[in-house]
Amino acid sequence: MGHTAVAAAAAQFYRRVRDATEALAAPLSAEDQTVQSMPDASPVKWHRAHTTWFFETFLLVPYLPGYRVFDPDFAYLFNSYYEAAGPRHPRPQRGLLTRPGVAEVTAYRAHVDAAMLRLLDGAAPAEPPAGLVALGLAHEEQHRELLLMDILSLFAANPLRPAYRTDLPDGPKAGGGGRRLSFDGGIRRIGHEGGGFAFDNEGPAHDVLVHPFRLHSRPVTCGAWKAFIADGGYTTPTLWLSDGWAAVQAQGWTAPGYWRRHDGAWHVMTLGGERPVEDDAPVTHVSLYEADAFARWAGARLPTEAEWETAAAGLPCTGNTVGSGRLRPAADPAPDGDRPLQMFGDVWEWTSGAYTRYPGFRPAAGAVGEYNGKFMANQFVLRGGCCVTPDGHVRATYRNFFYPHQRWMFSGVRLAEDA
Amino acid sequence: MGHTAVAAAAAQFYRRVRDATEALAAPLSAEDQTVQSMPDASPVKWHRAHTTWFFETFLLVPYLPGYRVFDPDFAYLFNSYYEAAGPRHPRPQRGLLTRPGVAEVTAYRAHVDAAMLRLLDGAAPAEPPAGLVALGLAHEEQHRELLLMDILSLFAANPLRPAYRTDLPDGPKAGGGGRRLSFDGGIRRIGHEGGGFAFDNEGPAHDVLVHPFRLHSRPVTCGAWKAFIADGGYTTPTLWLSDGWAAVQAQGWTAPGYWRRHDGAWHVMTLGGERPVEDDAPVTHVSLYEADAFARWAGARLPTEAEWETAAAGLPCTGNTVGSGRLRPAADPAPDGDRPLQMFGDVWEWTSGAYTRYPGFRPAAGAVGEYNGKFMANQFVLRGGCCVTPDGHVRATYRNFFYPHQRWMFSGVRLAEDA
Amino acid sequence: MGHTAVAAAAAQFYRRVRDATEALAAPLSAEDQTVQSMPDASPVKWHRAHTTWFFETFLLVPYLPGYRVFDPDFAYLFNSYYEAAGPRHPRPQRGLLTRPGVAEVTAYRAHVDAAMLRLLDGAAPAEPPAGLVALGLAHEEQHRELLLMDILSLFAANPLRPAYRTDLPDGPKAGGGGRRLSFDGGIRRIGHEGGGFAFDNEGPAHDVLVHPFRLHSRPVTCGAWKAFIADGGYTTPTLWLSDGWAAVQAQGWTAPGYWRRHDGAWHVMTLGGERPVEDDAPVTHVSLYEADAFARWAGARLPTEAEWETAAAGLPCTGNTVGSGRLRPAADPAPDGDRPLQMFGDVWEWTSGAYTRYPGFRPAAGAVGEYNGKFMANQFVLRGGCCVTPDGHVRATYRNFFYPHQRWMFSGVRLAEDA
Amino acid sequence: MGHTAVAAAAAQFYRRVRDATEALAAPLSAEDQTVQSMPDASPVKWHRAHTTWFFETFLLVPYLPGYRVFDPDFAYLFNSYYEAAGPRHPRPQRGLLTRPGVAEVTAYRAHVDAAMLRLLDGAAPAEPPAGLVALGLAHEEQHRELLLMDILSLFAANPLRPAYRTDLPDGPKAGGGGRRLSFDGGIRRIGHEGGGFAFDNEGPAHDVLVHPFRLHSRPVTCGAWKAFIADGGYTTPTLWLSDGWAAVQAQGWTAPGYWRRHDGAWHVMTLGGERPVEDDAPVTHVSLYEADAFARWAGARLPTEAEWETAAAGLPCTGNTVGSGRLRPAADPAPDGDRPLQMFGDVWEWTSGAYTRYPGFRPAAGAVGEYNGKFMANQFVLRGGCCVTPDGHVRATYRNFFYPHQRWMFSGVRLAEDA
Repeated sequence: MGHTAVAAAAAQFYRRVRDATEALAAPLSAEDQTVQSMPDASPVKWHRAHTTWFFETFLLVPYLPGYRVFDPDFAYLFNSYYEAAGPRHPRPQRGLLTRPGVAEVTAYRAHVDAAMLRLLDGAAPAEPPAGLVALGLAHEEQHRELLLMDILSLFAANPLRPAYRTDLPDGPKAGGGGRRLSFDGGIRRIGHEGGGFAFDNEGPAHDVLVHPFRLHSRPVTCGAWKAFIADGGYTTPTLWLSDGWAAVQAQGWTAPGYWRRHDGAWHVMTLGGERPVEDDAPVTHVSLYEADAFARWAGARLPTEAEWETAAAGLPCTGNTVGSGRLRPAADPAPDGDRPLQMFGDVWEWTSGAYTRYPGFRPAAGAVGEYNGKFMANQFVLRGGCCVTPDGHVRATYRNFFYPHQRWMFSGVRLAEDA
Repeated sequence: MGHTAVAAAAAQFYRRVRDATEALAAPLSAEDQTVQSMPDASPVKWHRAHTTWFFETFLLVPYLPGYRVFDPDFAYLFNSYYEAAGPRHPRPQRGLLTRPGVAEVTAYRAHVDAAMLRLLDGAAPAEPPAGLVALGLAHEEQHRELLLMDILSLFAANPLRPAYRTDLPDGPKAGGGGRRLSFDGGIRRIGHEGGGFAFDNEGPAHDVLVHPFRLHSRPVTCGAWKAFIADGGYTTPTLWLSDGWAAVQAQGWTAPGYWRRHDGAWHVMTLGGERPVEDDAPVTHVSLYEADAFARWAGARLPTEAEWETAAAGLPCTGNTVGSGRLRPAADPAPDGDRPLQMFGDVWEWTSGAYTRYPGFRPAAGAVGEYNGKFMANQFVLRGGCCVTPDGHVRATYRNFFYPHQRWMFSGVRLAEDA
Repeated sequence: MGHTAVAAAAAQFYRRVRDATEALAAPLSAEDQTVQSMPDASPVKWHRAHTTWFFETFLLVPYLPGYRVFDPDFAYLFNSYYEAAGPRHPRPQRGLLTRPGVAEVTAYRAHVDAAMLRLLDGAAPAEPPAGLVALGLAHEEQHRELLLMDILSLFAANPLRPAYRTDLPDGPKAGGGGRRLSFDGGIRRIGHEGGGFAFDNEGPAHDVLVHPFRLHSRPVTCGAWKAFIADGGYTTPTLWLSDGWAAVQAQGWTAPGYWRRHDGAWHVMTLGGERPVEDDAPVTHVSLYEADAFARWAGARLPTEAEWETAAAGLPCTGNTVGSGRLRPAADPAPDGDRPLQMFGDVWEWTSGAYTRYPGFRPAAGAVGEYNGKFMANQFVLRGGCCVTPDGHVRATYRNFFYPHQRWMFSGVRLAEDA
Repeated sequence: MGHTAVAAAAAQFYRRVRDATEALAAPLSAEDQTVQSMPDASPVKWHRAHTTWFFETFLLVPYLPGYRVFDPDFAYLFNSYYEAAGPRHPRPQRGLLTRPGVAEVTAYRAHVDAAMLRLLDGAAPAEPPAGLVALGLAHEEQHRELLLMDILSLFAANPLRPAYRTDLPDGPKAGGGGRRLSFDGGIRRIGHEGGGFAFDNEGPAHDVLVHPFRLHSRPVTCGAWKAFIADGGYTTPTLWLSDGWAAVQAQGWTAPGYWRRHDGAWHVMTLGGERPVEDDAPVTHVSLYEADAFARWAGARLPTEAEWETAAAGLPCTGNTVGSGRLRPAADPAPDGDRPLQMFGDVWEWTSGAYTRYPGFRPAAGAVGEYNGKFMANQFVLRGGCCVTPDGHVRATYRNFFYPHQRWMFSGVRLAEDA
């Protein structure tokens, strides 16, 4: 493509990403968009403004001559955690910001979008780094997923248990019960290399020595989890990591997040409101601690990052992501075979891998160097995307990460074993 | 008046009270009305709904035949603390309720208002207890004051420091520096008796023995408070109650609530936004601990409840209340004389009186018996109303009460001394 | 008596008080004396040293020429809360002080005792203020009671439930079930005046207006408390003050402090180890919240300070105090009559009186002015002494005070009613 | 050796290990041995009893016929964390156990020692598993190190800053400033295999792919750390992991643990009391967060576990361990060369390795299976032993582990780099 075509494509992608965020927020009232359900979550309005601030701060201010900042106070309000970008509003207090209102955030987005489209159209004498635009868009896609996680957290805290959408289609039946697939050991190359966008923490690509292992072809289901509960999973300390058992007792966990037992059956809060738990569907909203205890109970373990990535290599990066419209995990109707199913979409799969740097990793220069690197302690890597991940956002090398006690994301489990 | 005239008057008063609440909420966006700034505060939307629930629960359901409850879930969402009225949404989580939205709360109010007006118009075969209607209206007036305190707390937590109103008139200059007024001792009758509405905790009227005392004719001013600060008031432990000093250190207090020093001067957050502190105006947003320490520093003490009520007896119950439109304390232009000034309005005045029962006190039967009685521990009584109290709401016997560490209300100090 | 005789009597009393403390500590090992069971309690060793520091700091250093301080570091370690006496070791960390050891504390006491006896023998040119010596001895007696409360708290936290003493005599049977006694209203004089020692907070004596009331002739028994438990006392929120109900839920209270149900019966931890609850004996280790809830359940209320003192006037200040050797409350074998029984000893009786200043109260000058005054917020007054109070230490005007949630002291309940 | 000789050797080793513990405890009073400085630490008395309980529970009860348990209550008091061995006294409350006293613990040790020596002498028909005896002794050696860490923590919390020993010899001067040593990449075998004792978490031995790296020949010194402080290390957020920066702010860290600045110089609390910081000596009492921030500031990083173990392979496992009598880190007088110095002893060196299972790891059957496995989350591995590690206790494969915020152990830093 020539320059103009490239610019047009970039603008088109920019619009698509930004419009998709607005579409997700559309069913939400001003009230819904303002409240923060817990310190880990953020208001929808804040997500919409923060992603906008990212473009303004890292692209428009440095690269678009004559750009007028929409509101100088927003640098303080909508910086998330970039120390290099200056002081910022404390995270647990994001929900206190009733002003600027939703309408003003919409205007902020429009203001920045117009400028960004000018920038992408070549209005700047020096072109902005292509990687930064891609990062800003990937960043917005991450927040689009967070937005749905956070609104689910908010609605689950409301005794009325409102539905984000009332028209969620049913999921299919599972095509089989799953199998254990065997993988050889050897030196494997993992991490991102070559073309296409990736986050800094996915590289550099490097060799690792993988030992022979087995991986289950499907994620653990809600039905299997009920058996774990029925077998005393949540009351047997020897199944748990020490910190996990402490969490069970401190939090009073007796089931996955958002599960409630009433009327003789387990129900789960979803983006479609509270529904009966579907036995066939992958279990979700489980912490690393629960995933680990379940695996121990099942005589298995969690996969390493390298095992997961090895097993995913070559598979198409598609699945039950947000575009399916289900907005919750679903069974896979494909029959059991010799390839793992549902590696992408449905649920982020906990690995046993503590989130840390790859050999040779160096953060990017400047504030965006804080993007992923400074979180490399105390968290675990999850792989594969989930039912609210934007289509096309995930890949085999993608390293998501959460603390082991967290479970408001769509996290699940796939079992592995030593060969 | 005949029955019809009485009914018409009751309806008129009902409308006036309810409309006044809506008028106060009118400048606030849906976002503003939804958020809870801290566990002690409540969302504006919640105040609007809870006061409505009070009429629905205690008047319409028991007394209006055929009344249709607006939404059965609201009994859970909008009960504040009435154990006898069933389980309820936890207070610290009131701010998580984005649904019902502001519009639905408006509809709820309209639904209940229509029914209440039917009830007040004699639609019920048995008339509801007059005291309950009056209680519901006094209750709504209390929440109207809370609504403004809470919105100030919310806006003060916003780095943008938005103004609730931008057209607040200036206050007058003080007519004098105040005097010490002497009062004789003797047996005095305090507490409410005779006609007119009063809360249960204001009675029964009873005799107390008051010792001779002196009371300052004006409340402590911001100027005096600056002198206290300058003299090391906040860094001298021997001025403080033991629990007060612990609070100073734990909270890092160095000045009254909402005070910030910048640009070489003290500023204070008000309902008109942040403004320079006015030396002449009564100080406000001080805790009991600060009031007590200031008094000790000044060689004085706080008045007892009986002293305050004795001194207020016979004075008109008017002053700088919400109707003045100032929405903050102001100096009194009246010259010094032999009667205390500003006893009503401006600031709630801390007494030394721990909030407890009057001799012979018995709570009302039923759920409304929880109105005031169960809070009779660990709080202190404040007297006289403040700049955001509804006009006509306060009286000499009125006993407001807060915890000694609290200061988001418009609390202030009037000094007393043993004679 | 002449000066010599007075000096001899003072020395004799000093020795008796100091020796009694050592006698109480004698059964305790170095380990027992060192540990702090909770922030509210102090180690026995600390009590022994702090009371010694009091004499050293307020008497020997200012009044005994040439006195050599035992160890200058002790001023920091053993100051309790006297801001005017300089910085001090944080209270919650008293239990971290393994050095100085018990033997060194014993040496400290001997060093100070020798000097105090010289001082009392007239070694100083200017005699020390008599009130200060008396205060030091009363202070030591208070700590002697605290020492036993604190060691009970420590032993109750030990799963072995060790006994402080194994030879506690049985208590008598109750001579009756108690009666309601009526008292007239009128102006009464309360507070300390005339000769004899009293703490600053007991004065000045002053007139109060008391309304006619009834008072129960005996404190509430354990048997009555079992009925309260059986009737759902701890699970009925409408019986409780709001803060009390919050405490019940936060602390998981289902019975008085140190009660445990096992082997089909209620047991209670005592200084004689764990024993079956005795139905006849006054209940103890109840918080103000529990006392208030019990009274409400019983259709009664707690007495005011003035009512209690009025009723106690003229009674001998004796009872089941530490000299009885029982070290726990016991029934009174006296038959019911027209005077209240057990007003002194057995259990400190909660009053409804928030602990505050008497009219005209002024703290003493200097550091000892912090003795009682700065605690005049958030606490309630208890009257009458208990089973571990030193004989002769208590009087009708004595005002003990604790926070409403505390219950490691020997606190109990006597019911009152409006006449 | 014949059976008798083996038995004699086992008994000799048993005696030596057990006696060494008693020798360490000997300078400590009953008071010192009883108190718990913080929840992470345990009382000395508890260490002495818990290690004894381990032999009683896992060896004497199952394997010595007719063994009489010393006190059945001790199973509850002195179980540390073995869920399979039944309920136990809560860890944060170990310091509340004044009974059993120190003398009784000594008797307990003697009772168990006598029985263990009978067992080791072949008194049992079936010999106990050799691994269990070795585990019990290694376990006791671990607690011997903890005992000194914990007593340092206790003495550091005492304003008197007492010395555990007053006769600590001075350390030598450093023989050089250290060099960067280069190591090749390739497949390396790590983990324990072959003869000799090792903990379960050191195996199984397995191949890993190591990338070329550099390792500094000496640990980071106190002098270098002063430069880090002077350069704003503790006030520059971009040097820190996100969780690390949060810890800096929450804890108010401005220097390593036990450092205090007074009289114009940095001092550090040691087992020999407070002393000036020695520039030449390895820095210690730093958290993982501080180690990581220092490395980032220095343009380096922490070594991986495999890098450390690769570099340590073949080196003698000796150094400044407890037998040197210094009880604090010291400089190494050896000149710089091409082998790393001080890999063993002085300070435990933080690695970047999150503590997790080795491929193929399976916990032992029974309660001792809880020994190490259940802690495999949220902690980081440290290597090499320290100045209070028992001589001969450490080896190249040894994996110690602590939480990243902890720093009461003798932890330090050795820098690594990508080649």
